[in-house]
Amino acid sequence: METVKVILWGLGAMGSGMAKDIVENKKGIEIVGAIGQNPQKIGKDLGEVLGLNKKLGITISKNPAEILHSTKADVVLHSTQSFTKDVFPEIKLIVESGKNVITIAEEMSAPQVETPDLANEMDALAKKHNVTILGTGVNPGFVLDTLILTLTGACQVISKIWAARINDLSPFGPTVMKTQGVGTTVEEFHKGVENGTIVGHIGFQQSIYLIAKSLGWELDKVVESREPIITKVYRETPHVQVQPGMVAGCRHVARGFYNDQEIITLEHPQQIHPELEGIKTGDYITIEGTPTIKFADEQEIPGGIGTMATAVNMIPQVINAKTGLLTMPELPVITALMGDVRKLVKR
Amino acid sequence: METVKVILWGLGAMGSGMAKDIVENKKGIEIVGAIGQNPQKIGKDLGEVLGLNKKLGITISKNPAEILHSTKADVVLHSTQSFTKDVFPEIKLIVESGKNVITIAEEMSAPQVETPDLANEMDALAKKHNVTILGTGVNPGFVLDTLILTLTGACQVISKIWAARINDLSPFGPTVMKTQGVGTTVEEFHKGVENGTIVGHIGFQQSIYLIAKSLGWELDKVVESREPIITKVYRETPHVQVQPGMVAGCRHVARGFYNDQEIITLEHPQQIHPELEGIKTGDYITIEGTPTIKFADEQEIPGGIGTMATAVNMIPQVINAKTGLLTMPELPVITALMGDVRKLVKR
Repeated sequence: METVKVILWGLGAMGSGMAKDIVENKKGIEIVGAIGQNPQKIGKDLGEVLGLNKKLGITISKNPAEILHSTKADVVLHSTQSFTKDVFPEIKLIVESGKNVITIAEEMSAPQVETPDLANEMDALAKKHNVTILGTGVNPGFVLDTLILTLTGACQVISKIWAARINDLSPFGPTVMKTQGVGTTVEEFHKGVENGTIVGHIGFQQSIYLIAKSLGWELDKVVESREPIITKVYRETPHVQVQPGMVAGCRHVARGFYNDQEIITLEHPQQIHPELEGIKTGDYITIEGTPTIKFADEQEIPGGIGTMATAVNMIPQVINAKTGLLTMPELPVITALMGDVRKLVKR
Repeated sequence: METVKVILWGLGAMGSGMAKDIVENKKGIEIVGAIGQNPQKIGKDLGEVLGLNKKLGITISKNPAEILHSTKADVVLHSTQSFTKDVFPEIKLIVESGKNVITIAEEMSAPQVETPDLANEMDALAKKHNVTILGTGVNPGFVLDTLILTLTGACQVISKIWAARINDLSPFGPTVMKTQGVGTTVEEFHKGVENGTIVGHIGFQQSIYLIAKSLGWELDKVVESREPIITKVYRETPHVQVQPGMVAGCRHVARGFYNDQEIITLEHPQQIHPELEGIKTGDYITIEGTPTIKFADEQEIPGGIGTMATAVNMIPQVINAKTGLLTMPELPVITALMGDVRKLVKR
């Protein structure tokens, strides 16, 4: 049986991690192309750039159209940017080359929310070219939508969903510190939220849409808030120092309302060193209903690995799926891929 | 749009609970037939038997063939017995009447394991009659297979799965006490396991099959053990008294091996009043890998409601699915049904 053939578009931390996962851990999948942007990577062998100490025979290209049209592949793993309007031309190019797309662009987990016109266009395009488009990742895509929805499956009735993903930003670099407002004064934080430089989490609108749509809840409105996490103690990382009274992170909360009742609450407080104020990281999901279900994971599912894993793990589901623009809840149960992926694929 | 039409076959605690859930909680679904066995229910109106204080216009019949062939319906919710060989003739009858089947017969969650010939026959029959057959329930069907698999979706590699479902048998009646060995001496317990009167949990073989198949693990063997839970303290329920030194329940464990390594361990200790010896009930899932994921629910998902809920909640997925005999991991994510089910169904 032929191997499952994958092209990587985007070779930052996420794309490179997916490539490594495929090469090191997966059976029956082969990387047949790699598209990058970083001049230091272009023209080099993918294996070398991944630090694998062996060549893979794949030269990193900066020319997407050329690679996509000259290379036969089942799916493109796409990880370049976060917003649908930015990735749309790239996804269009992939689809027109007749390949399935898995993207980790956060908004693409449900592009219907922010860009319904682009969503319709992508759906039509995918159907025309007989391929599937899926946006996934750890969040949006998994923890605060697919996993929540799965847990509701054991309920007859639900009245409210509350979930929190509490993580530690300490390992991240200066860009993340800026977009989360770490190290700012309270005033700077509020200004940053206002002018859009402090963004918090990208994906709440999508997660709430996926939850409500799948359950059949019709929400009146979704409200987001971004509040500063003001530290009482000194916290620091190699990239930032935060004095008491300053901002250690962003408490981003999204609330979905129906008839003036808050029926979905998703919280994602992100800060450096939460343990210094006794805050436990973790993923917490409470579904109030018949029955009430409370699941918790005190070692939160790590964002980076989780995103790389969900993208790679959906390869067989996406190849097997009907054509069009799909979302995670529409596809079969996501699982790790421990066997030969060729056996899972119907081509 | 036409309502989704359901026939219930089996009106014990589970079937009646599903009927009540549909009547009281679901929009766009209608019960159009009911098949029972209990002479006290036959000929009566379903609403009356469910204690709804209103008639539903559905007379409970003891004649499956008649109801199935005279009534147009999308799906039959089937809850009569546990083993595939026992329910096979009933499922055949449903399929031949051109209706989809959702059954809570434990072995039907993966009939390939114990009865591969019957599984093949059902698959062919379902395809011939253009319908879908699904076995589901809280366990097997959800907690120790579908939910575990979903959690592995965020992993790049997994090396071992350990999960435990620790519950309290105190609310159950005399039949469950017998099949779990509650109130026996240790000697009686071992004899009961040997002669098959003490069965423990039905469904481990199926859950392990679903996990391994979906992950792509090829197991060498699956070993089950049933050990007595010997109480140190006096425990009692309205149906049984257990003196210290006697058996308060059955610790049923199933282990899946690959190359002599135990890579799947599923534990299901079932006993009355576990709290009397400080044992917490709950569902515990640990996936060792990259990353390691540990989820826990200290109020275990209740078996009865969970089984009724999963069966009803899968109605749209089963109606929309391709034809044949399917398993839970092959179908889209299970969710609660809070909206009009007609909107979810493609007919």
